[in-house]
Amino acid sequence: MTSSPSPSDASSAIEELLSAYHDLNPQSVEELHEEPSPLEFMRFVAQNKPFVLRKGASSWAACRRWNCEYLSEAMRGQSVKVALTPMGNADSVLALPDGAQCFIKPFEKEELFEEALAHIRSQSSDPSYKGPVRYAQTQNDNLRDEYASISPDVPSSVPFARIALQKDPENVNMWIGNSHTTTALHHDPYHNIYAQILGGKHFVLLPPIEAPCINEKTLPAATYRPRNSTAPENAQDLVVQFDDPPDTAPFACWDPDNPSVNTTAFSHLSRPVRVTLAEGDMLYLPALWYHKVSLSCSEEGICCSVNQFYDMDFSGPFWPMSGFVRSIGLSAIGEKQKKEPHNE
Amino acid sequence: MTSSPSPSDASSAIEELLSAYHDLNPQSVEELHEEPSPLEFMRFVAQNKPFVLRKGASSWAACRRWNCEYLSEAMRGQSVKVALTPMGNADSVLALPDGAQCFIKPFEKEELFEEALAHIRSQSSDPSYKGPVRYAQTQNDNLRDEYASISPDVPSSVPFARIALQKDPENVNMWIGNSHTTTALHHDPYHNIYAQILGGKHFVLLPPIEAPCINEKTLPAATYRPRNSTAPENAQDLVVQFDDPPDTAPFACWDPDNPSVNTTAFSHLSRPVRVTLAEGDMLYLPALWYHKVSLSCSEEGICCSVNQFYDMDFSGPFWPMSGFVRSIGLSAIGEKQKKEPHNE
Ligand SMILES: O=C(O)CCC(=O)C(=O)O
Ligand SMILES: O=C(O)CCC(=O)C(=O)O
Repeated sequence: MTSSPSPSDASSAIEELLSAYHDLNPQSVEELHEEPSPLEFMRFVAQNKPFVLRKGASSWAACRRWNCEYLSEAMRGQSVKVALTPMGNADSVLALPDGAQCFIKPFEKEELFEEALAHIRSQSSDPSYKGPVRYAQTQNDNLRDEYASISPDVPSSVPFARIALQKDPENVNMWIGNSHTTTALHHDPYHNIYAQILGGKHFVLLPPIEAPCINEKTLPAATYRPRNSTAPENAQDLVVQFDDPPDTAPFACWDPDNPSVNTTAFSHLSRPVRVTLAEGDMLYLPALWYHKVSLSCSEEGICCSVNQFYDMDFSGPFWPMSGFVRSIGLSAIGEKQKKEPHNE
Repeated sequence: MTSSPSPSDASSAIEELLSAYHDLNPQSVEELHEEPSPLEFMRFVAQNKPFVLRKGASSWAACRRWNCEYLSEAMRGQSVKVALTPMGNADSVLALPDGAQCFIKPFEKEELFEEALAHIRSQSSDPSYKGPVRYAQTQNDNLRDEYASISPDVPSSVPFARIALQKDPENVNMWIGNSHTTTALHHDPYHNIYAQILGGKHFVLLPPIEAPCINEKTLPAATYRPRNSTAPENAQDLVVQFDDPPDTAPFACWDPDNPSVNTTAFSHLSRPVRVTLAEGDMLYLPALWYHKVSLSCSEEGICCSVNQFYDMDFSGPFWPMSGFVRSIGLSAIGEKQKKEPHNE
């Protein structure tokens, strides 16, 4: 007797999901000018909603003290890990000459901090610079480790986040680079409190619900290696080497800044949100938000940021539901590709 | 070159969703013995996680004062809306003699409060009682309206909820019935703060993610009407009348207390959570949780509860993702029914 509701297929359910989300959520990042209380912060966490706190880090010693001279002085004689790439493309998708794609990781090199800094600055000021692009970053708690001598200039936690989330940061990361680097679109299973110290950062943000838009593919993993020596002088000394044993990584192949290529059937429904951090600004980037980041330099030719990763809570519906959206998206895209095959 | 990830179909994605959720979440309702702060409450909201606060309402004047004599006295001469059903089955699925199902609503009757109370009590104590089952409830803010004379015995809001959610309750509801009533499995787009005043309430709870388990069907709507008069003396004087103009309602057809019938392909993956409220206990039921409720009586033969509905926030990913799970679930079930047809 009773007919079941007519089953809507996965594609139209995804379209409805995206339009319902966009109807109910702002198309820009909320701007705060005063520090939130832990309760106010928790409301953003509950809504998985980013905000930028203008000047939120400006009272940090790092913001008051850090410049090239201070950093060189404090870090003199210490070596740090630096990501070297030919084009500033660490941890990103690389199109190979044969038309294939891989997930490319940087050549990681241990260098004296002052050498790395000199390279970064010279690329910013010298048009004839031919060396690899350097990004002093590792995302594995390097501030409290390699940069221990200056880490007291950054508060060990951000109180509203620590109190609300009931934990200290899992990772505190230093990022020193120049405008030749871009961090490709990706997401992390952490609440991210991101502070801009020197220069500017430009974020393109996509909510986790847009997983069906980003064209996630499982790509063969490769790493840049120096062709001859361990000290590549020129950018072209870095060559692509597939990982051995072979490995793969799932990665976003769609670029919100080049939205008409590498699309899925849903990419046109993405509504990227852009926000720029100036010196002293702080961004709360909730867990699982996709972000693409580009850099602009201070007068001294560097861009320096610090971020704290706080573990997300995997309980509740958000984590499994996000995985569900991703997996239905992958399957709908797979179906579409089968129905509408085209050369890639 | 690169092969797309193998598309998992909707059914296996739903199975993974349910098992991921259950692996990461408790199989019982957390018990608190002290009132949470607004921040602590907000953490439960963020996780869409219920809790029971034992004795959380015991200091309310309602808990100290209310009994049949006090209520009759305070409400003398006032009439209230009462839901009348033959079997205590208001707002539930009814199997019709021809095998079909409908969504049945109660006969709503305006009665003097003391008359309604006498009926409710006499059914509790008199085995020969033949009248309809009465449940004095309307879910439309009746405490602040029909029961205005006793509504000051209930705090106008629960402070931790009002402060965290930044709003007063949208609805404050009175529920007076006896053990012959059961409230069928359903969910509401509200945060529910539910306080038990007299007798006990027994909740069966399902998280919103279990939408694919509850066998939602769109059923023709019907209402109990008295056969002859407007004052049905006997339960069998109430007959089913389809709504005119015809209407439909989506409703859960699976009963977690009778789990082997009216199933979907996913019902067996449901993990219902049970909790009983004794006098003075308070339950936080997060938005969209499915709940089935049965009643047990105080020594005076009644069961009395009060709840406050706080508007949920539709921004963020939770609301659209919940709709997505529901809609993919309906479509997967529809597909399964097409592939494995059976008589209903
Ligand atoms: O600053 C960057 O280049 C990238 C930052 C980032 O990806 C992160 O903090 O997760
Ligand atoms: O108390 C009952 O019978 C049902 C309560 C309920 O469904 C609710 O508060 O939403």
